[in-house]
Amino acid sequence: MNAVVHDGSGGVRVDEVADARVQEPTDAVVRVQLAGICGTDLHLLQHHESLPRGFVMGHEFVGTVAETGAQVTGLRSGDLVVGNDYTACGTCHWCRSGDHWHCDQRRFFGTGTTFGPALPGAQAELVRVPFADTTLRRLPDGVDRVAAVLLGDVLATAYAAAIRLAVTPGELAVVLGGGPVGQVACLMLHAFGAAPVAIVEPVEKRRRMAARMGSVALAPDDATSGVRELSRGLMADVVLDAVGGATGLDLAFDLVRARGRIESVGVPPEPKWTMPVGMAFAQEVRLGFSVGNFIRDSEPLLSLLRVGLVDPVRLLSTRDGLRSAPAAYAEMAERHILKNVVDLTQASGG
Amino acid sequence: MNAVVHDGSGGVRVDEVADARVQEPTDAVVRVQLAGICGTDLHLLQHHESLPRGFVMGHEFVGTVAETGAQVTGLRSGDLVVGNDYTACGTCHWCRSGDHWHCDQRRFFGTGTTFGPALPGAQAELVRVPFADTTLRRLPDGVDRVAAVLLGDVLATAYAAAIRLAVTPGELAVVLGGGPVGQVACLMLHAFGAAPVAIVEPVEKRRRMAARMGSVALAPDDATSGVRELSRGLMADVVLDAVGGATGLDLAFDLVRARGRIESVGVPPEPKWTMPVGMAFAQEVRLGFSVGNFIRDSEPLLSLLRVGLVDPVRLLSTRDGLRSAPAAYAEMAERHILKNVVDLTQASGG
Amino acid sequence: MNAVVHDGSGGVRVDEVADARVQEPTDAVVRVQLAGICGTDLHLLQHHESLPRGFVMGHEFVGTVAETGAQVTGLRSGDLVVGNDYTACGTCHWCRSGDHWHCDQRRFFGTGTTFGPALPGAQAELVRVPFADTTLRRLPDGVDRVAAVLLGDVLATAYAAAIRLAVTPGELAVVLGGGPVGQVACLMLHAFGAAPVAIVEPVEKRRRMAARMGSVALAPDDATSGVRELSRGLMADVVLDAVGGATGLDLAFDLVRARGRIESVGVPPEPKWTMPVGMAFAQEVRLGFSVGNFIRDSEPLLSLLRVGLVDPVRLLSTRDGLRSAPAAYAEMAERHILKNVVDLTQASGG
Amino acid sequence: MNAVVHDGSGGVRVDEVADARVQEPTDAVVRVQLAGICGTDLHLLQHHESLPRGFVMGHEFVGTVAETGAQVTGLRSGDLVVGNDYTACGTCHWCRSGDHWHCDQRRFFGTGTTFGPALPGAQAELVRVPFADTTLRRLPDGVDRVAAVLLGDVLATAYAAAIRLAVTPGELAVVLGGGPVGQVACLMLHAFGAAPVAIVEPVEKRRRMAARMGSVALAPDDATSGVRELSRGLMADVVLDAVGGATGLDLAFDLVRARGRIESVGVPPEPKWTMPVGMAFAQEVRLGFSVGNFIRDSEPLLSLLRVGLVDPVRLLSTRDGLRSAPAAYAEMAERHILKNVVDLTQASGG
Repeated sequence: MNAVVHDGSGGVRVDEVADARVQEPTDAVVRVQLAGICGTDLHLLQHHESLPRGFVMGHEFVGTVAETGAQVTGLRSGDLVVGNDYTACGTCHWCRSGDHWHCDQRRFFGTGTTFGPALPGAQAELVRVPFADTTLRRLPDGVDRVAAVLLGDVLATAYAAAIRLAVTPGELAVVLGGGPVGQVACLMLHAFGAAPVAIVEPVEKRRRMAARMGSVALAPDDATSGVRELSRGLMADVVLDAVGGATGLDLAFDLVRARGRIESVGVPPEPKWTMPVGMAFAQEVRLGFSVGNFIRDSEPLLSLLRVGLVDPVRLLSTRDGLRSAPAAYAEMAERHILKNVVDLTQASGG
Repeated sequence: MNAVVHDGSGGVRVDEVADARVQEPTDAVVRVQLAGICGTDLHLLQHHESLPRGFVMGHEFVGTVAETGAQVTGLRSGDLVVGNDYTACGTCHWCRSGDHWHCDQRRFFGTGTTFGPALPGAQAELVRVPFADTTLRRLPDGVDRVAAVLLGDVLATAYAAAIRLAVTPGELAVVLGGGPVGQVACLMLHAFGAAPVAIVEPVEKRRRMAARMGSVALAPDDATSGVRELSRGLMADVVLDAVGGATGLDLAFDLVRARGRIESVGVPPEPKWTMPVGMAFAQEVRLGFSVGNFIRDSEPLLSLLRVGLVDPVRLLSTRDGLRSAPAAYAEMAERHILKNVVDLTQASGG
Repeated sequence: MNAVVHDGSGGVRVDEVADARVQEPTDAVVRVQLAGICGTDLHLLQHHESLPRGFVMGHEFVGTVAETGAQVTGLRSGDLVVGNDYTACGTCHWCRSGDHWHCDQRRFFGTGTTFGPALPGAQAELVRVPFADTTLRRLPDGVDRVAAVLLGDVLATAYAAAIRLAVTPGELAVVLGGGPVGQVACLMLHAFGAAPVAIVEPVEKRRRMAARMGSVALAPDDATSGVRELSRGLMADVVLDAVGGATGLDLAFDLVRARGRIESVGVPPEPKWTMPVGMAFAQEVRLGFSVGNFIRDSEPLLSLLRVGLVDPVRLLSTRDGLRSAPAAYAEMAERHILKNVVDLTQASGG
Repeated sequence: MNAVVHDGSGGVRVDEVADARVQEPTDAVVRVQLAGICGTDLHLLQHHESLPRGFVMGHEFVGTVAETGAQVTGLRSGDLVVGNDYTACGTCHWCRSGDHWHCDQRRFFGTGTTFGPALPGAQAELVRVPFADTTLRRLPDGVDRVAAVLLGDVLATAYAAAIRLAVTPGELAVVLGGGPVGQVACLMLHAFGAAPVAIVEPVEKRRRMAARMGSVALAPDDATSGVRELSRGLMADVVLDAVGGATGLDLAFDLVRARGRIESVGVPPEPKWTMPVGMAFAQEVRLGFSVGNFIRDSEPLLSLLRVGLVDPVRLLSTRDGLRSAPAAYAEMAERHILKNVVDLTQASGG
C-alpha cells in the first residue's frame, strides 16, 4: 500500500510499504478515507530522533473497517469509523476508570517512539488498529466526515480541557495559541457557554480567523490590558493554554483571576518550569494538564458535531489524494494553512 | 404616591396610596423606574382571595435608592438597583446556605398573602424593601435596565432550573410552555450549551417567537414525535417544565429519556399529582422543583446579561407611565403581548 | 448440574438441569462458588407469573471462569470473578454513556421475564454469562468473597443512590427500610460522610442491627419526631428510600427538608403514586430513582470493599451447599435471617 | 486591657494596651474566651519585619459579643461567637461570589502587615472585629468551644482543600506535614470518605498522634514506598500538602498518581518553585492552592463539629489565663505541644 513516511531526515514522502494487516485477534484494519496532518507531525519531524526512517506518519483518521480480528465484536467490515489517536486495552484499572491515556498498553499512532512503543500511522491506505473495539467508534449519520477527523485528537483535547475547567455560562475564557487546538478550543468554550472567549496569538491571520468565529483576538503584547478591560479588572475566569511550557504558562498566570483556573494542553518543550508559587498560593489558582480521550468522551463529542454546536470544518482545508501530503505538510509548516486533511477517496490533484 | 392596586374584584387600577417609607433600620425605599407585570400577577387577580382590595401589586423592579435605614450598609441614595422578588434576612441558616427562599422572614412583594405575610408591591412610585442589603443588588454598568427587570424573578427562575438540570453542551433540552418563563428558559438553556432546545407551546405566536430565537417549536400534539425525531429515538436529556401541575409533568415524563432529568418551575395548581412511578423507577428519572433566587445567583446572572449571552429584551414590551398599567395587564391577559414592563420615568401615553 | 429452581407454585427446590454452556462467542460460563439469595427472589416467588416452573433462580454470584467464548478477551479460565446482576452489550449508546441498565440487550439473571427476556440464574453449579467481558469483573486480592456477592446488586444499588444524592460530609441522611439494601445503604452513606445516618424500620431486630453498626434506628411511628430532633427542626438533608412505592415515598416527603433530596431504589409495587406536588414545589424537593450498575461503578465499589470502608460481611449469613438453599430461602422469608449466601464450595450441612 | 504582644525582637509578652473599641458602625468588639496560638504566629515572630513592637497577636478566637456598632444587625451583646481569621466586607463582587479572601477590604487579625493592612489580634481580653456581621458566626449549642477555636483558620483550611480535591469515598489520600493543619486535614479527609489516609511527617511524636486517630503515618524516607504499597503501585489519588514550597510540592508530585490531584495549603517560603511540568503534563496532574474561608463554609463546618464527624479536641492543649501565653508559645516552638489554646475564662495557673 502507499503511505506517508518519514524520509529519515525530517521530511515526508509517499512510499510503498507492506499492507497493514490484522496481527492480533482484537485488531481491525481500517481503509482510510480521510487523514489529518497535525502540528505534532510537524514537530516530530523537526526533532526526529524517535521517528525511524520509513515510519508511517499520522494519528487522525476516518475510514471504513476493512478486516476484523476474531475477537472484535462491535465492528463489521464496511463500518464507517473514526479512531482515537492512541489505543488502549479497555479492560485494565485505568481504562475502567476512563483514564485510557494511562493504560499500560497504550500506543500512539504514527509518532514513532515518542509516546511509548511505536505503532504505524494512519496517513496510509490502510491502518492497523489494535484493540479495535475500544479504539474505534462508528460514525453516526449526520456527522461531517471531515470534521470527524478532528475527533480523535484536537476535539478530544479541547473537550477534556473544557470539562476540567468546569466553565459556567458567562465566564470569561482566554485561549493561548491560535493553532488548530487553540482555534477548536475557542469553539468548544463557546459551546460550554464561556462569554466572551478571548484568544492570544501572535500571527495576525490566525487572530482574524478566531475573530470571524466570534472570539476576541489579542496579540500577545495586548493580552494583559485586553483581558483586564474585558473583565473590568478582574482578569480571566479560566485560561486554556494550547501553547505549553514557559511561553504559555507564564502568560496564563498573568491573565488568570484570583481563584481562577488554568488548564494546559500544550506539550511542554522542557521538563521543568519555574512556577510563580507565591502568587499561585495567594490567588488560590488551580492548574491542570489534560490529554484528550476520545474513547471516554465519544458520546458527547459526537453529539456536539451532529447538532452543530461545534463546527470545526471552517478551520480545515482538504487536499486530494495521498500524493498531496508532502505539499500539504509544507503549507502547514509555512503557516499558509491552519490544518490540512488529506482525502484518500479523491485522486491526487495534478 | 401612585400605585397599581387590586380593585377588590380581580382587576387593577392606579390609585393614590400612602408613600412607602423606611419602617425598620434594615429597610430601604426604592424609587421605581421600571416595573414588570408577571403572569403571577394575572393569575393572582383571577384567584384573588389572598389579595386585599387596594393592595399594591408587582414584584419585578429596577429603580434608584431613595432612602436607607440606619443599618443599611451596602447601599446609598441614588444607587441604581434591582430587587429580588422576595426578601430574606441574609443571616439565618437557610440564608447562609444560599436557600433564601426558605428564610423564615421571607416576604414576597406584591402578592398579598399567597406566599406568606403580605408586603406591598413594586408597581408604584416607591417601594419599601426590607433587608435591603440582602434583597437588592446594585446594577453594574453595561446591563440593560429593561432586561434587568427580569432578574429578580424570570431570569433567576430559569437559571436555578438550568443549574439543577446540570445541562452539558450538546444535550437535547425541551421546555414546556412558551410564556415569559419558558421563553427565557430557552435562552438560558442555549447559554448553557443545550442543543437543540425544543419548546412545546399551544399558541402559534409564541412558538414563532421561540423559533425566531433559535429553538425548535412544537405544538403539544407534535411534542412526542418531534422530540423522538430530534433525538433519534432517545428522547430528551432534560425537560424544563414551565407549566407545572399535571399538564406539565405528565408531558415531561412522556418526553424525557431514560436517566433523564426534569425540573419544574411552574406553580402546581393542585396539591397532588399522580406520578408514573413505575416508569420513573424503571427509567431512573430524576424530578426536581426549583424557585428562583436572585440573591444567591446575582453574580452569574448579572454577568450573563452584561456579556449578552442571554438577551431577553426582545421578549419584552414597554409601556410609558404607571397609568398605562391597567391596559398593559389587559394586553397580557389577552395574550397580545408576552410581557409588559411599565416605564415610570416616562409620562403615560395619551 | 444442580440448581435452585422454581417449583411452579411459588417455592424453590434443588433440581438437576442441563449444564449451562457457552452459546454465543461473547459468553462465558462461571463455576459458582457463592450465590446470594435476594429479597427480589422472595418477592418474585410470591408473584410468580413471570417465573416458569423449573426456572433457575439467583442473580448474585462469585465464582471462577469455567469456559469462555471465542470473542471473550478479558477473562481466562480460572479467573475469580463477580457478576453484575444483569448483562449489557458494552458497545451501544447507553453502554458507552455508562447507562448499561438501559441497554437493549440487557437481561437480568434468574428473574424470569420480570425485567425483560429470561436468563437462567446463578444459584446453580454453573451459570452462563452473556457479554462476559462487560458483565463480569475479576475480583482483586484483598476483597472478601462473601462480601463480593453483594457487589452486583445490593452494593451497586446503594452506591448509585449515594452518588445521585451527592451527600456531603456532615449531612443528615435517613434510610427507609432495614432489609439488606437499607442496611447496606447505611454503611454506604457512612462511607460518604453522612452523619448522623438514621434508619426507619418496623422490625426491632433489624433496627438493632443497624444501631450496632452506628446508625440511629427509628420505628416508623417515631420517624418524624426523631428526624426533627436529630436535625433540630430542619429535617433530613437526604432520604434514601429502600422501601419504594407509597409506603416509602410518602414517608420520604414527610422527612425531607426544604431543598432536600430523595432517592428511591425500591421497586414500586404499583405503577402510579400520588405525589404531594404542592409541597414538593414549595420546598424545592428533588426526587430520583436509581438502579444499581456494577458494570459502571466497579472500580470505586471494589476499592470500598478492599480498604474496608464498607464492610457488609457482618450483615450476611452463609449456608453450606446448594441443598441448603430451600431452607435458606425460608429463613429469610420468616425474617430470621437478613440475608443468606449459599456456599457451593462446601458440602451441604446435615 | 491585657494582650499578648510582640516584644519587638521576635518574642511575646503580656502587656497592657488600649481597650479594643468599636470604630466603625459595622464593627463589633468581642470579649475573648479562648484564643488559639497558631504556627503562623511562631513563624511571624521568627521573621518579624512585618510585626510592629507591641502589636497584639492572634487570629483564632471564641468569645462573647461585648459591643456592636450601629449597623451590626445579626449580633447582640452576649452572643457566643467564633471569628474567621480575616475580615471581609460581605458585599463586593468577591464576597458575593464566596471568595472573601480576595475582598479588597480583607484584613487578617494579629499578623501585622504580612497579609495587608494591620489589624490587632485576638490574644487579648477584647478584640475589635470589622464587618462583624460577615466575619463572626454565632456558635450553636452542641459545638465544643475549644474545638471551635480552630474553625476560623485550621478547620476552614482543611475543609477548603478537601472540597477542591473533590475526594470520593475509598480514595487514597496523603497529607504532607503533621502540624496542626496536617493533623486536622487527616480528620477532615476521613470525614470525606478518603480511605486510607496516610500522613508524611518527620517527627515521630506527630506520626504517632496521627496513627492514633486512624491514619497511616510515614516518615519522609518511607513515603514513596509506603504510598506505592498502600495503592498497589497506583500511587495517591489526592495529596493535601500542608508543608508548602519545594519541600511539600516536590514530594507531592512524587506521590501522586496519574490524573491525581494535589492541593497545597502551606504558605510557600519562596515566590518561585521549579515544577516538573513534563511529568505533570504526561500524568495529567492537577495542582491547586487553597486558603480557608470560614465565612463561606461556616454551615458545613459547624455541622461537622456538632455531629462529631470531625473531632479536633484531642489535638489541642489548653492553658489557663492570658499570662500563660508566653510559655504556651514556647511549648509549641519546642514541639512539645502540637497546639495550645489559651483559656481567658480561667485564672492563670501558678
